[in-house]
Amino acid sequence: MNNFNFYSPTFFVFGKGRENETGKYVKRFNGSKVLIHFGGGSVIKSGLLDRVKASLTSQGISFEELGGVVPNPRSGLVYKGIEICKRKKIDFVLAVGGGSVIDSAKAIAMGALYDGDFWDFYTGKKIEKALPVATILTISAAGSEGSMGSVITHEDGMFKRAANNDVLRPVFSILNPELTSTLPDYQIACGVTDMMAHVMERYFTNTKNVEISDRLSEGILLAVINEAPKALANKDYDSLANLMWAGMVAHNDTCGVGRESDWATHNMEHELSALYDVAHGAGLAVMFPAWMKYVMHHDVMRFAQFAVRVWGCEMDFQNPEKTALQGIERYEKFMTSIGMPIRFSELGAKAEDIPTLVKTLGLGANTLGSFVKLTEEDVKKIYELAV
Amino acid sequence: MNNFNFYSPTFFVFGKGRENETGKYVKRFNGSKVLIHFGGGSVIKSGLLDRVKASLTSQGISFEELGGVVPNPRSGLVYKGIEICKRKKIDFVLAVGGGSVIDSAKAIAMGALYDGDFWDFYTGKKIEKALPVATILTISAAGSEGSMGSVITHEDGMFKRAANNDVLRPVFSILNPELTSTLPDYQIACGVTDMMAHVMERYFTNTKNVEISDRLSEGILLAVINEAPKALANKDYDSLANLMWAGMVAHNDTCGVGRESDWATHNMEHELSALYDVAHGAGLAVMFPAWMKYVMHHDVMRFAQFAVRVWGCEMDFQNPEKTALQGIERYEKFMTSIGMPIRFSELGAKAEDIPTLVKTLGLGANTLGSFVKLTEEDVKKIYELAV
Repeated sequence: MNNFNFYSPTFFVFGKGRENETGKYVKRFNGSKVLIHFGGGSVIKSGLLDRVKASLTSQGISFEELGGVVPNPRSGLVYKGIEICKRKKIDFVLAVGGGSVIDSAKAIAMGALYDGDFWDFYTGKKIEKALPVATILTISAAGSEGSMGSVITHEDGMFKRAANNDVLRPVFSILNPELTSTLPDYQIACGVTDMMAHVMERYFTNTKNVEISDRLSEGILLAVINEAPKALANKDYDSLANLMWAGMVAHNDTCGVGRESDWATHNMEHELSALYDVAHGAGLAVMFPAWMKYVMHHDVMRFAQFAVRVWGCEMDFQNPEKTALQGIERYEKFMTSIGMPIRFSELGAKAEDIPTLVKTLGLGANTLGSFVKLTEEDVKKIYELAV
Repeated sequence: MNNFNFYSPTFFVFGKGRENETGKYVKRFNGSKVLIHFGGGSVIKSGLLDRVKASLTSQGISFEELGGVVPNPRSGLVYKGIEICKRKKIDFVLAVGGGSVIDSAKAIAMGALYDGDFWDFYTGKKIEKALPVATILTISAAGSEGSMGSVITHEDGMFKRAANNDVLRPVFSILNPELTSTLPDYQIACGVTDMMAHVMERYFTNTKNVEISDRLSEGILLAVINEAPKALANKDYDSLANLMWAGMVAHNDTCGVGRESDWATHNMEHELSALYDVAHGAGLAVMFPAWMKYVMHHDVMRFAQFAVRVWGCEMDFQNPEKTALQGIERYEKFMTSIGMPIRFSELGAKAEDIPTLVKTLGLGANTLGSFVKLTEEDVKKIYELAV
C-alpha cells in the first residue's frame, strides 16, 4: 500500500427536505454574501431555487444569482461569475445543481481570490485559496459535491481541463434524493455510468495488496448495479438515495486510497464530450469497454477479480482471460440495459474524427494513464476499438 | 433510508514514517502548546515518543507530557490531564497510542475548556467545545482516531460511559502501520474483533434498503477477514496497513449512514471489561455470538445475508435459519482461529457475576439497543448464553 493523505472535510446533509436548512449551514460556515450559481430553468420551475432563497433570507443572508451553466460547463460563465464576486464582495459560492454547476462554482471560487486568469489553475498553476463553496445537489453523478476536482471546457478551442485541490472541497453539501426523482432516465443512467467510472478508475491499478480499497470499490459498484435498475423503473426514494450517496463515496476517494489511480478513460472521454457536446456519462460508457479490452492483458487476474466479485462471473481457473472478458461483456450489457451507448455510432461520434480527438488530447511524446502508460498510438487504437 | 448528517473532517496522514511530520501538522492546525498524552513504556522504548518530540521541537512547538493511560482508561488520569491543561495553558492535545489513549485525550480536551466536572459529558451533558485533538495511532482497533466518541471508566465504581460529539473528531490522525508490527498477536486480534464489531453494530438494523451502507460494511468485513490471518502470521506491512485503514473506516460512520445502529453488544461488553479489566476486543468476541443467537429470529434474512455475503455460506432457500446460524458459527470459528475467546470461561468471567453485570449496566425499566429492544431480562439471558 502506498503512503497517502485522506481528507474529506465536507459536512454532508442528507435526506428529504434538507435544502430548507441551507441558510443555517451557510451561517455555520461563515457565509454572509452568497453567489447562488445554477444551470437552466429546472431549479426555478421546481421551486427549489425559491426554497433556497427563502432559507437564506430567513437567516438574514444576502445573495446574488448567476444561472446559465450548461453541461460540460464553459469558461465564459466562469469569467462572468468571477467578475460578480469581485464587484459585489461575495464571500460564499453556493452551487445549486449537478456536477457542471458545482465545477463551475469551484472555478469561480478560485478566480474570485486571484488577480490573474482563472484558467491558469487548469493548466498547472498551484491553487492556494478559494472562496468557500457549498452545494445543493440535484443529480447523482459527478461526485463533485465531495471531491477536490473541477473540470471546465475552454470555449476557445472547446477542450476540457481539470483542476484539483483540497481547498475546492465543498464546506457543506446538501443531498436530497427527492430532487433527483424528476430527472429523465437518460440523465440518471449517465450519472450511474459516471460514478461507476470513478470507482473503476481507482480500481484498475498496479499497486498490489490494497484489499480494503478493493472491497470498498466492489461494494460501491455492487450497490449501484443493484439500485440503478430499480431507480430507473420506479423512481422510488430508497433507490435514488442509495445512488446519491454512492455517487459521493465513489469520488471523495473513500475507495481510492493507498494506490495509483488511472484517469486515462476520463481524459479520453473529455475530448469526446468537448467535441460533440455529448453527456459525459454517455461518453464514458463508450470509452470504458474499449479501454478495458485494450489494457486487460496487462493484468488479467485483476480483470478476472472484477468479473467474479463485481459481476458474479464464475472463475475459469483454466482460462482466467475468459473470465476477464466476461466481466467486460457484463459491464457492456449492464450499460445497454440502462440505456447507455457503448459504441461511437450510438453517440453520434465519427471514426474520421479520431485524428482530431487524438490531436486535441495533446499527448505528444508524453503518455496517458498509469495502469498502462498509453502513447498517442495506443489512444488512437482505443478510440478505434470504440467505433 | 433515514435522513442523516455525515461529517468526518479529520486529515488522515497514512504510511511509513509519517510520525516525523507531526510538528508540521500541529502547526497547520494551529497548535502552539501541546499536551502529549500516552500510555505505558512502549512508545518510549520504541523511540516513537522521541521522534514525535523531535518533530514538534523542529517546528518550535513546546509541549508537556502525561503518560500512564491504561487499557479501559480511567477518570483519574483525565482529571490530572485537565489540571495540566489549565495550569500550563495547553491549546492542543496530542494522543500517542491506541484507542484508550485517544479516548482519554478527548476527555481531557473537553474538560480543559469546562469549569465543571468533565464526567458531566459522560452522563448526558451537551458537549459544546473541546481543545483540538490529534492522534498518532499505535494499534488498529478502536477507530477513535476518526470517530466522535470517547469511552472512559469511572474509578468510583468501575463502570464505563461514552461521550459523543463532532468536536471530538481529531483534527489530524497519523496512521503508520509499521508502529503496529511489534504488537503481541493477542492485541492485534482484539483490535480486529473491535473493528468488526463496529461494522456489525451498524449492520444489524431495522432500517430497510440501505444497500450502499450494507455493501460498504460487507466490504470492510471481507477485507478484515482476509487480512487478519496474514497480519498475525507474517506481520507484513501491507496486511497491517489494510487492517489499520479498515479500523478507521469501520468507525468514522462510512458504513453506518442512513440507518439505525445498535450498540447493545458494546454496552454489555463495557460492563464485562470494566468488572474484570479484560481487553475490550476479547469481551466483544464473547458477547457478539451470544447477542446474535438471541436476536437472530427478529430478522433471519438479515443474518442469512450476513452469512452469504460476508462468510461465503451457501443460501439454504428451504431453511434460511440454517444459513443464518452458519454465519454465526463462521464468526465464532474465525474468532477462535485468531486466538480470541468466545465464552465466559475463556475470559475469566463467571456466571455468578451475571446479576452484578446486569445491575451495573443499570437498565432498570429502560431497554437497550434498537435492532431488538432488550429488557434487563433479555440482557441476563444473553450473558447466560455467553457462559
